[in-house]
Amino acid sequence: MTPKIARYLAEQQPATPCLIVDVDHVESRYRALQDAMPIAHIYYAVKANPAPEILRRLVDLGSCFDAASIGEIRQCLEAGASPKQISFGNTVKKISSIREAFERGVDLFVFDSEEELAKLAEHAPGTRVFCRLAVENEGADWPLSRKFGTTVEHAHELLLRAKDMGLEPYGLSFHVGSQQTNTAAYEAAIARVGMLFTDLSKAGLELKMINLGGGFPVRYRDDVPEIDQFGLAIGRAMTEHFGNALPQMLVEPGRFLVGEAGVVSAEVVLVSRRGGKESDPRWVYLDIGRFGGLAETEGEAIRYRFRTAHDGLPTGQTVVAGPSCDGVDIMYEKKRVDLPMALRSGDRVELLSTGAYVSTYCSTGFNGFAPLAEHYI
Amino acid sequence: MTPKIARYLAEQQPATPCLIVDVDHVESRYRALQDAMPIAHIYYAVKANPAPEILRRLVDLGSCFDAASIGEIRQCLEAGASPKQISFGNTVKKISSIREAFERGVDLFVFDSEEELAKLAEHAPGTRVFCRLAVENEGADWPLSRKFGTTVEHAHELLLRAKDMGLEPYGLSFHVGSQQTNTAAYEAAIARVGMLFTDLSKAGLELKMINLGGGFPVRYRDDVPEIDQFGLAIGRAMTEHFGNALPQMLVEPGRFLVGEAGVVSAEVVLVSRRGGKESDPRWVYLDIGRFGGLAETEGEAIRYRFRTAHDGLPTGQTVVAGPSCDGVDIMYEKKRVDLPMALRSGDRVELLSTGAYVSTYCSTGFNGFAPLAEHYI
Repeated sequence: MTPKIARYLAEQQPATPCLIVDVDHVESRYRALQDAMPIAHIYYAVKANPAPEILRRLVDLGSCFDAASIGEIRQCLEAGASPKQISFGNTVKKISSIREAFERGVDLFVFDSEEELAKLAEHAPGTRVFCRLAVENEGADWPLSRKFGTTVEHAHELLLRAKDMGLEPYGLSFHVGSQQTNTAAYEAAIARVGMLFTDLSKAGLELKMINLGGGFPVRYRDDVPEIDQFGLAIGRAMTEHFGNALPQMLVEPGRFLVGEAGVVSAEVVLVSRRGGKESDPRWVYLDIGRFGGLAETEGEAIRYRFRTAHDGLPTGQTVVAGPSCDGVDIMYEKKRVDLPMALRSGDRVELLSTGAYVSTYCSTGFNGFAPLAEHYI
Repeated sequence: MTPKIARYLAEQQPATPCLIVDVDHVESRYRALQDAMPIAHIYYAVKANPAPEILRRLVDLGSCFDAASIGEIRQCLEAGASPKQISFGNTVKKISSIREAFERGVDLFVFDSEEELAKLAEHAPGTRVFCRLAVENEGADWPLSRKFGTTVEHAHELLLRAKDMGLEPYGLSFHVGSQQTNTAAYEAAIARVGMLFTDLSKAGLELKMINLGGGFPVRYRDDVPEIDQFGLAIGRAMTEHFGNALPQMLVEPGRFLVGEAGVVSAEVVLVSRRGGKESDPRWVYLDIGRFGGLAETEGEAIRYRFRTAHDGLPTGQTVVAGPSCDGVDIMYEKKRVDLPMALRSGDRVELLSTGAYVSTYCSTGFNGFAPLAEHYI
């Protein structure tokens, strides 16, 4: 938690549940990433947190943007981004969205299938397109592999065809999975992309860009490698596979830029032993749960850290659940959380590193709970 | 799909994705349930769909309401319900919510733990309280068992204590799990409750009410027993365990009343073979997914039926996914869906029986997609 957030919480005591984001921290992460990968162009993955305060700060810093929908493209433009700074980074796009993006001046689009390529050729003619490869997601806490990307052979064929269809085949992308803690995942993917660059060059097509995706991790319960280690590993792999003829490099950080900048302030609603006996499992129910924004606790994938007023006092293994009547609204049960035994109904609890993928996952009104309040400071 | 919805879709062609609900169908399901269980008091589980149009219709029909939060209590009151028609049915309640409900005249509350009972005694003194028992959820497609309810022994102890604390120990409740297709689940739970009624009576406490919860199923992909079968099984079990001294019976249907009254109209955004070859899996991406309202497809639990303009033409096994860049936004992959091979990007697709647990699960703006539009007709 940044000092600014700690001060805000102490002074304002905002109603719970709410998300507080320190926008200065987003800036410092942006600078750290740029330092670690000086020649990479940063395309912020807007989906991680599309708050105008964050987008405007990143516009001021000169960031580019990876948008998942026409809605996110509009948000970027409203925040002052130029259309040339925006990549339409979803391989699944409605025709009406492609058209609107094209008309607004966006000229960088991803695809991974024949049908999508045909849609782009017809509705965004002449634009730059890149093909997403499927790569291994091993090491990622939130994998993405099955749904997106295609094979090297198919990408080869589609990129050659793109040229014939009046598009500019511009590059290749991949995504090693979100919250990826293994630098080797990037190295393996770069090797694969490097080979395809060479093959396409032999076929007469010189690609110009490699999009390394995002996935750079933030610290939740466990320590993760520093961004410099990713920068070094990626730099070495790029040099190994491309030599001096480095293509343009794009990265799409989302979680990395905003995750640690945010804190959820919540309230304990109930502490109970499920069967009433001391030997029964202890449950703590918060006023935020899987449908109030903590969707990434599905399968207990993302394990947030907790801060309470009782930290340092004796703790016990605790199941942590949300406030709704839904049986799946449980955050941590298989792997319980070590929480102070002194916790009681009405106590405030902070969930750290919750700046990414919390505000927008939140449901519109499940069980009659209002969407999460957000404070950008 | 009801004729009214079919006509609405044909005439209005509403923008996708959207939910259309036939409120008359809600009424007919209410009447069918009342016919099947003539002496049961129906408490609609508001969480299934809190649309004012539905609440108002149910108020007109004389329904009572099971509310999961103070937000839902407000919605019921705004729709014209009397506070005496409302049960605060969440075992996890903020003190501020208990207070407000009490001040507004709600006088029926559930609990399943010591701490919650103490909160009720202090902030809703003198009100009627019932204790939720944990029961088996076998046979339910959306189980609820772990998070709620306590043991028979603990309930016995807490209900006796409730009296000493100035509350009116009123009854017992259980929930056999949502989309429960097995009538025996209710029979087993009633037997357990019956024994506890007897034990408490011996201890000098005469309970007045048994709340059978909800769980009554609707037809998705598979046929389910008719509501009359549940009515018969429950009636027989009640007579067996309570004889002529039948307590007041409450039921809390949510899905059963609104599920089949709703249809989601969606659009195909992309059809692709993940690797480009005919032998590769075929994926259909819709403009609605797990974060646009179809949250109950998590784990492929609830299997909606599809209707397309190509029904009757040759079909193939298909993976069905949502439009977001999220790797978990996949509805059906392990068990694929048989969909027409003629389906193309831009085609409309209807998802049947989507009136329950769709509108409010929807995210506020994940990936920049607006919340689901809703039409109540």
